[in-house]
Amino acid sequence: MNACEQSVTSAAEHSPAAAPASVSAEPRPQTLAPDRGFDHWLLSRLHAALGSPPLELAVRNSARVGAAAAVAKVTFATRATLLSVLSDPAMRFGDAYSDGRVTVDGDLVEMLESVYRAGQTSGPPSLLRRCITALHRPHRNTPAGSRDNIHRHYDIGNEFYALWLGRTMAYTCAYYPTPAASLDVAQVAKMDHVCRKLRLQAGESVVEAGCGWGTLALHMARHYGVRVRAFNISHQQIAWAREQAARAGVGSRVEYVEDDYRNITGHYDAFVSVGMLEHVGLPNYPTLGHVAQRCLGGRGRGLIHSIGRNWPARLQPWIEKRIFPGAYPPALGEMMRIFEPWDLSVLDVENLRLHYAQTLRHWLALFEGARERVRDMFDEKFVRMWRLYLAGSTAGFTTGTLQLFQIVFAPGTSNDIPWTRADLYSR
Amino acid sequence: MNACEQSVTSAAEHSPAAAPASVSAEPRPQTLAPDRGFDHWLLSRLHAALGSPPLELAVRNSARVGAAAAVAKVTFATRATLLSVLSDPAMRFGDAYSDGRVTVDGDLVEMLESVYRAGQTSGPPSLLRRCITALHRPHRNTPAGSRDNIHRHYDIGNEFYALWLGRTMAYTCAYYPTPAASLDVAQVAKMDHVCRKLRLQAGESVVEAGCGWGTLALHMARHYGVRVRAFNISHQQIAWAREQAARAGVGSRVEYVEDDYRNITGHYDAFVSVGMLEHVGLPNYPTLGHVAQRCLGGRGRGLIHSIGRNWPARLQPWIEKRIFPGAYPPALGEMMRIFEPWDLSVLDVENLRLHYAQTLRHWLALFEGARERVRDMFDEKFVRMWRLYLAGSTAGFTTGTLQLFQIVFAPGTSNDIPWTRADLYSR
Repeated sequence: MNACEQSVTSAAEHSPAAAPASVSAEPRPQTLAPDRGFDHWLLSRLHAALGSPPLELAVRNSARVGAAAAVAKVTFATRATLLSVLSDPAMRFGDAYSDGRVTVDGDLVEMLESVYRAGQTSGPPSLLRRCITALHRPHRNTPAGSRDNIHRHYDIGNEFYALWLGRTMAYTCAYYPTPAASLDVAQVAKMDHVCRKLRLQAGESVVEAGCGWGTLALHMARHYGVRVRAFNISHQQIAWAREQAARAGVGSRVEYVEDDYRNITGHYDAFVSVGMLEHVGLPNYPTLGHVAQRCLGGRGRGLIHSIGRNWPARLQPWIEKRIFPGAYPPALGEMMRIFEPWDLSVLDVENLRLHYAQTLRHWLALFEGARERVRDMFDEKFVRMWRLYLAGSTAGFTTGTLQLFQIVFAPGTSNDIPWTRADLYSR
Repeated sequence: MNACEQSVTSAAEHSPAAAPASVSAEPRPQTLAPDRGFDHWLLSRLHAALGSPPLELAVRNSARVGAAAAVAKVTFATRATLLSVLSDPAMRFGDAYSDGRVTVDGDLVEMLESVYRAGQTSGPPSLLRRCITALHRPHRNTPAGSRDNIHRHYDIGNEFYALWLGRTMAYTCAYYPTPAASLDVAQVAKMDHVCRKLRLQAGESVVEAGCGWGTLALHMARHYGVRVRAFNISHQQIAWAREQAARAGVGSRVEYVEDDYRNITGHYDAFVSVGMLEHVGLPNYPTLGHVAQRCLGGRGRGLIHSIGRNWPARLQPWIEKRIFPGAYPPALGEMMRIFEPWDLSVLDVENLRLHYAQTLRHWLALFEGARERVRDMFDEKFVRMWRLYLAGSTAGFTTGTLQLFQIVFAPGTSNDIPWTRADLYSR
């Protein structure tokens, strides 16, 4: 799961031309026709509302405003578009960009970073904002609701995802031993990092909650000699996973189950969930913890890997509505609702935020390289929506409005836990 | 700071004699005189209230009850003592043990572990228990309150602590590269682990909140070439620390300040606090976070090291009253109140629970070796109180009712953060 971020998001037209640097930051109504003067005033309001990022904002064939060293130029096709965005920037900007009513000259990720950074200068979240976050209720994640939410994102076509996820089909943050590593190398390194954190031993059993296209389960069975039961409610992903396992000849050691994590039964040596928590929903965290506790039965190890936040805040509304219904990136404190009720002990937390930014840069580049084919599969609007989502997520991780937490845990009464973490880094 | 644990605590008389294994678990009123029958009934009630641990319980010259394979025998001097403990086990057991009205045959730590483990089988904390925890208000940690609380524990005599803390005088969890490492080696390894996690570079500046006897500050200045300002409100500790720094010839690079963490000013490359959070008090966590955020000013790294819990629960009442007024070991989720309001990003959490158990075993052995001198300095009651506290804390960490969290953090907008943790483990 990947999530875009924060109040207003924008998008790049992938024109390499830099935005003109000489843009006045002050309104100059006296030099404009009355209509232009009104557009100018509207643009100034939007610019101020965004925290005055280094951007040029314009209405086509009309006014423009902006900072001195603009990193990009954002053009609204008409005043109506600008008014629409002003009325609800968090929702309407994404829609206008998707329709092509907003265009961006310059680097899309840089443009979005500038908006996020300008928003961050307003300081910590106010009590009011926290209350609004607490009141917000995203799409419900009942078993039926989850099935619908997951279907809307993950079942849009394996061939589409295969265009830009790389060979592993891993749709979660990779682990780059160095920033120069390739996407595929980093995805394999992530799987090894997870397996090492779980201290898997040959012959052990593992249960995976939310297995995507099944790559991690396959990797564990192949390279760590464990038996894996992997759960997922996406029909298309499970079908793909089963085919891969059969081809790899490990079908007897990996069982893919098309079912909800809430229905997991049995005892296992390890519990793992990579990139599912974002879809679980806060009210279900204790249930997820209960499943893990039940599976481990007082022994073994667990790992949960999820997008998160530095403080509680709802998902960017456009992303939640158009890309990820029902998703929520929790703060680390909120994640403790999984563990606390069941005396599960947190042993290790690692924040891999910059690794997700790097992963997304690779995905975005592959996506751009395949955009003609994506357009053929869907349409231009779909291309623009997904470009905005990938670029916005990149900017979320580079600016620190999104985090990536890997949490290792164990039953609180078990002393069969690692003495140090040195073994994770020894070769 | 170290803390004892859970409902009822007990203590060992260091008699190596194993408790008799053939103890009936059933009341046998018909074989006892009426008085003995009543004592037997009372002991049975206590045994059941403790969750039926593998212990023999007895009233001297009267009845006894217990499990088949008892790990220790706990003897109450009189029925009055037993009634007193039954009326408020969490508080009165410690007092009765301190006075010698309760004696323990067998290993004290094992005896306490058996009680904690029996208590853990009752499952996760109920809502009622959580509400009671939330309502509990320990001694207030206002600046004046903190001074009083700290004075009562840390100012009882540097010579006393020097008897059992080892050469480093570090009164916090050590880091054992292997379980066989000595206390002194492990304390130095802990300081290096902290310095490496902070990625200290020569020439940088560090502020330390709660510096104990100043050993970490001294170590940083000596071995990492940094300048350190170290704060502490314990007069005796600061005096000792200044003397050590002068002797080591690094007085110009380490400044010990006898003042409250709330009064820290200035900007630094790193913020560190090892073993102070337990004394800060939940309501002051946002204040501590604000101090850290102010000190780092949008850059740099921070580390907080503290005893914690798997879920919120107050400190064992006897320990809080007799040993550590005002102390509270927070759950990891509660610790987030330090970071969330200031957009401080948690980068790394490591749980070193078993290392604290090992540290305490070493302290307890040194303490026992010096008990005659401790008795001369104070009295027998003091020896028994501190033995109970050290043994209870050991049992708290071995049974998982206490945790030890090391948390690395950075300002949320800073990308000058470690790429991986591999450097911590490379030599």
